[in-house]
Amino acid sequence: MNKKVAIVGASGYSGEELVRLLLHHPRAELTAVTSRQNAGRTIAEVFPKFAHHPRAGMLRFSEPDARLLARQAEVVFLALPHGVAAEYAVPLLQLGCPVIDLSADFRLKSAALYKEFYAHEHPAPELLGQSVYGLPEIYRARIRNASLIASPGCYPTSILLPAIPLLRDGLVRPTGIIASSLSGISGAGRKAELDYLFVECNESARPYGIPKHRHLSEIEQELSLAAATPVTIQFTPHLIPLNRGILTTLYLAPVEHFQDRAGHLPASPEDQATTMEALTGKIAACYRSAYGNEPFVRLLDPDTSRLPDTKNVAGTNVIEIAWRLDPRTGRLIVLSAEDNLVKGASGQAVQCFNLLCGFPETAGLVP
Amino acid sequence: MNKKVAIVGASGYSGEELVRLLLHHPRAELTAVTSRQNAGRTIAEVFPKFAHHPRAGMLRFSEPDARLLARQAEVVFLALPHGVAAEYAVPLLQLGCPVIDLSADFRLKSAALYKEFYAHEHPAPELLGQSVYGLPEIYRARIRNASLIASPGCYPTSILLPAIPLLRDGLVRPTGIIASSLSGISGAGRKAELDYLFVECNESARPYGIPKHRHLSEIEQELSLAAATPVTIQFTPHLIPLNRGILTTLYLAPVEHFQDRAGHLPASPEDQATTMEALTGKIAACYRSAYGNEPFVRLLDPDTSRLPDTKNVAGTNVIEIAWRLDPRTGRLIVLSAEDNLVKGASGQAVQCFNLLCGFPETAGLVP
Amino acid sequence: MNKKVAIVGASGYSGEELVRLLLHHPRAELTAVTSRQNAGRTIAEVFPKFAHHPRAGMLRFSEPDARLLARQAEVVFLALPHGVAAEYAVPLLQLGCPVIDLSADFRLKSAALYKEFYAHEHPAPELLGQSVYGLPEIYRARIRNASLIASPGCYPTSILLPAIPLLRDGLVRPTGIIASSLSGISGAGRKAELDYLFVECNESARPYGIPKHRHLSEIEQELSLAAATPVTIQFTPHLIPLNRGILTTLYLAPVEHFQDRAGHLPASPEDQATTMEALTGKIAACYRSAYGNEPFVRLLDPDTSRLPDTKNVAGTNVIEIAWRLDPRTGRLIVLSAEDNLVKGASGQAVQCFNLLCGFPETAGLVP
Amino acid sequence: MNKKVAIVGASGYSGEELVRLLLHHPRAELTAVTSRQNAGRTIAEVFPKFAHHPRAGMLRFSEPDARLLARQAEVVFLALPHGVAAEYAVPLLQLGCPVIDLSADFRLKSAALYKEFYAHEHPAPELLGQSVYGLPEIYRARIRNASLIASPGCYPTSILLPAIPLLRDGLVRPTGIIASSLSGISGAGRKAELDYLFVECNESARPYGIPKHRHLSEIEQELSLAAATPVTIQFTPHLIPLNRGILTTLYLAPVEHFQDRAGHLPASPEDQATTMEALTGKIAACYRSAYGNEPFVRLLDPDTSRLPDTKNVAGTNVIEIAWRLDPRTGRLIVLSAEDNLVKGASGQAVQCFNLLCGFPETAGLVP
Repeated sequence: MNKKVAIVGASGYSGEELVRLLLHHPRAELTAVTSRQNAGRTIAEVFPKFAHHPRAGMLRFSEPDARLLARQAEVVFLALPHGVAAEYAVPLLQLGCPVIDLSADFRLKSAALYKEFYAHEHPAPELLGQSVYGLPEIYRARIRNASLIASPGCYPTSILLPAIPLLRDGLVRPTGIIASSLSGISGAGRKAELDYLFVECNESARPYGIPKHRHLSEIEQELSLAAATPVTIQFTPHLIPLNRGILTTLYLAPVEHFQDRAGHLPASPEDQATTMEALTGKIAACYRSAYGNEPFVRLLDPDTSRLPDTKNVAGTNVIEIAWRLDPRTGRLIVLSAEDNLVKGASGQAVQCFNLLCGFPETAGLVP
Repeated sequence: MNKKVAIVGASGYSGEELVRLLLHHPRAELTAVTSRQNAGRTIAEVFPKFAHHPRAGMLRFSEPDARLLARQAEVVFLALPHGVAAEYAVPLLQLGCPVIDLSADFRLKSAALYKEFYAHEHPAPELLGQSVYGLPEIYRARIRNASLIASPGCYPTSILLPAIPLLRDGLVRPTGIIASSLSGISGAGRKAELDYLFVECNESARPYGIPKHRHLSEIEQELSLAAATPVTIQFTPHLIPLNRGILTTLYLAPVEHFQDRAGHLPASPEDQATTMEALTGKIAACYRSAYGNEPFVRLLDPDTSRLPDTKNVAGTNVIEIAWRLDPRTGRLIVLSAEDNLVKGASGQAVQCFNLLCGFPETAGLVP
Repeated sequence: MNKKVAIVGASGYSGEELVRLLLHHPRAELTAVTSRQNAGRTIAEVFPKFAHHPRAGMLRFSEPDARLLARQAEVVFLALPHGVAAEYAVPLLQLGCPVIDLSADFRLKSAALYKEFYAHEHPAPELLGQSVYGLPEIYRARIRNASLIASPGCYPTSILLPAIPLLRDGLVRPTGIIASSLSGISGAGRKAELDYLFVECNESARPYGIPKHRHLSEIEQELSLAAATPVTIQFTPHLIPLNRGILTTLYLAPVEHFQDRAGHLPASPEDQATTMEALTGKIAACYRSAYGNEPFVRLLDPDTSRLPDTKNVAGTNVIEIAWRLDPRTGRLIVLSAEDNLVKGASGQAVQCFNLLCGFPETAGLVP
Repeated sequence: MNKKVAIVGASGYSGEELVRLLLHHPRAELTAVTSRQNAGRTIAEVFPKFAHHPRAGMLRFSEPDARLLARQAEVVFLALPHGVAAEYAVPLLQLGCPVIDLSADFRLKSAALYKEFYAHEHPAPELLGQSVYGLPEIYRARIRNASLIASPGCYPTSILLPAIPLLRDGLVRPTGIIASSLSGISGAGRKAELDYLFVECNESARPYGIPKHRHLSEIEQELSLAAATPVTIQFTPHLIPLNRGILTTLYLAPVEHFQDRAGHLPASPEDQATTMEALTGKIAACYRSAYGNEPFVRLLDPDTSRLPDTKNVAGTNVIEIAWRLDPRTGRLIVLSAEDNLVKGASGQAVQCFNLLCGFPETAGLVP
């Protein structure tokens, strides 16, 4: 049985990507798309690149209306700004319609944390206990039974998937973690602002949101759960001239054996080689155990020189992960690459949808 | 009095940029350019973009010949690969001709370190004691009297200028330093290799040279001198789709007051605000004292939201530096942006040339 | 029944795109890929972006060997340089294996014309009568029964599809046709040459191959067949900084009614409006009749302001076509956009493959 | 004696480029910059890339006020939208202050033509007779004595400079001219519109403004003057993902000798070679005579394979021109490349300023 689905707020880049994925999904039937600004226009008119799809000329954007949506769709995706998403999630859930929300509204467990990072009261704190964080590699079982799925942010996905197994297995210290991320410009959304004009972004590399980016809240929440202790990290996002893609470089400190307390390696080359080898084996085993069978995690073989590259994941739901131990510093460098609009947003939301509906997890997300 | 200058190995991107700067330099007369592959062709033919300069149609590339160069020029720039530069530096110096070398051959004080990082014996170890590291903001006086100037690498410049004052003043710990750098593709040189084709670089962000990039040798040498103690850092370079530009993000730990030994901030908000304020004042004073009068260092006012951006330094010899204290982690984040071919290579070499010749330091490098 | 297929010369951009399409094709089984330079390596190693496909880690590149290929595959795709393709086509056809050739070797009907444009004797002139030009919208019936399909060039596709219906219906003059085309850099192939480095292509727009580009030979052959009279056109290709895409602007002169012999419009506004309206109706009807039911031709409605854009066809087998009558000049401007690697090369080859095998024409080419 | 200058409307890309050029101009002193939206902010704040210039931190944007400007400056540049520029030009001229206007307001000689193309009444038709079209290579003498200079549009410059000498000398027919132009995104101005976002422009090539772009009015006016007969041309602009640059391809028909009336070449190869040679000589002589001594026109030698490339003129006031006779079609192809913000706008305005003030024509525009 196929599922009828709707997308609320389908005018931005995540919404557009959801339209692409759901139009071609073998088990989903896209029955409604809403957008205040585009109401009345067809998908083909709003997104000319989809005009060749048989349904693109027939399906028209409508004004969002929770009651109507609950009748039109069996699962509703919300691709709305934070604060607004909750307005639709509440009535949809009351009407019994499962919701997959791509905004930040239901990612945090704490309304106070939400207020600290998003600067307004949480619009529906009573739902925070009910929502499931939509990271399938970590919460697969819960997602299958969820009614409200909070799809993770693009940066968090690129940081959490590489970091969580290491923290969960106690291989790296929960302190001093640094994540440096590079994002394509679609990550800023489809906003008519001077900062995101072609001429302002081309030939430009720039940090922003330093030192307290909003995504820190969900990153630290999930790392803390993995480490079973509060985790505070350093996170520095940068904008670079790509359409799509996030590359994240993580700096981590191995917990044991490899270094003495001052961070020094064993003095003798033999001891160093031994500890390096042991640690290498543990890290490889940790990742293999966590992701060896994951359909969308590509572990790059540490025996080759291959490192993650955004161009190798663009348009796909795959995240590439590689790692290197640095014998000079004793540090573990972990690198990841994902498409911020797919594994970092809409593709992951569809992966959750597949789990929720009991479909094959890769349906509509050809690797 | 103007100076006659020559460029040996002027076919790569650094060589091309030297040609641009020296053709327009008010005090330099470019009398010779050499290149094996382009011998016999004019500058206008090899670099069409300079064809409009009066001298570009007359000056022809020649085969490199140290004796001839020493007669043609009063100062010789070497824009050659490491290992090859020394072949010309030795005879030129013997003939009494000052040399500004853009390769790595004379940047390190230790021939053993050179061998460790460049994988061959140093070709002229007797010159290592004589060479001056060409970072004018740090070694201005010595550069004025040098006969052999080793112009720094592009990544090192972007790391050393922000880090040295803090280490010299003892404001940050010499341990645990991390530098994450993003470089435009011209940093890879003008090489006919598949990895640097447009299609392979556009829409691509990728790390490389991890964990032991060659530039670490000169970075750590200079940081160690500044800190008066051996410094080992973590350095991760990335290639991003820019023609020009390096953006570096530095992660540093303030030494005192700000954190307790476990890296925690003072418990009370009042104490924290006090220590933040004190440290903020010290850092600001440190940078102001180091660079307040530097013609090519642009300190971004921490009271504004401005952060470094490669597009704001492209084509200029300026390096932008900004910093942020993170009260959540106790860390100091320092950011820099430069044009890798100008302040990161040829512009800095011309700045050294100006010092060497007693010209105004900004001659030919209009800020 | 699925078909076993092989790709000879799968290391270039067209070959890579064939690998992508055939790996995911629901009716094709990719059993062999050959490449001298990559022999022994898996698809996953050579093309990391496909590494997640189940077969990518198992299928290894081999040395090309016609006998072996004829046993391994039921249809063989040749993605080789011109001149080389014939070496494999001849023995494969002798062994009874149908060939889809993406090179220029079998596109021309005349060996003399081939020699004029490709500067060497045709390697297998006896096959020229047998080959079918692989433009499905024009030669669908013949492609279904072909043994040797010559897949068209990227520029020719972008010119022929918009021009042929107008010439066939006698709506435009066969003289004075001008085609100005803009191509992404992948059109130059995966060649380690300085001209195609990122730094040389980024921020560069440049013509090349003027005035006699090789593709003129097949363009004029096919336009002449459509017009039933010899056609000579002006063709000016340009390289622009895209990965993928060709945008072509065609300048055509309507045959009748619209202009007098001197190219002037009717004097009175009423007469002009009448002739414009009549001509508009004929052109619209011509295109509707030619392409109204074509799965991969997207006719942009002349009543909207939409014009072709390469970003709206990237990654798809769709060609967008729009047209405007200019009342000021009496000329008809026709514009097309395609992905040079898909509809301009590998996608179109797969479309031919589908026809040849009796599969749905859109199989593996989701619009 | 230096000249005091002001820029009205200095917030867009042309205004920013004027700021760059005038800050570094050896004979100009920038005394005022105005902008409604940026009033009160310094140049360093609005344009961080100029922050290193000594005056950038002191000069503040003000509200535009003609009386005040006439006191502050001896020459005023207007970088305003059409329709608005006239509001300032009128009082400034009345106050005796020469004006260099970068808008379209004073480029046309006919107020009716202005209304046809700009869709509103001309705001100051009495000034149309007084203004001089600011193309120095064509109107040098008049510019020297002008009080109101109408700086040409970016597309017109790229078309007029290659076409005018050929029309003036009667070498090409004034009918059937086609100009196909490719423009970087800065040509669209600094506007916060979705169409010009990075993600919408990157990987996009698209025509627009077809078939009646506003620039046609000034292009045809000037071509008609050169040909001494009314000229109507076909002009198709395209947007491509460059920051800066216009590449124009012109299709022209030689007038005599080369073709018979039907557009055919002489039948015998000998005759053809003779007529080609004769025509080649005439075209070369025409361009040499027109531009052989021009400081900003780079004629590419037809004996080499060099063709114009936007990257070779970026940041300079140079226009590159090359041409090819096509013996197959009898057509003359002329190609030009310029920086749309420099020779296509602000650089050319400064070139006019130099003429107006009796400065060396290249002052502040180092070739």
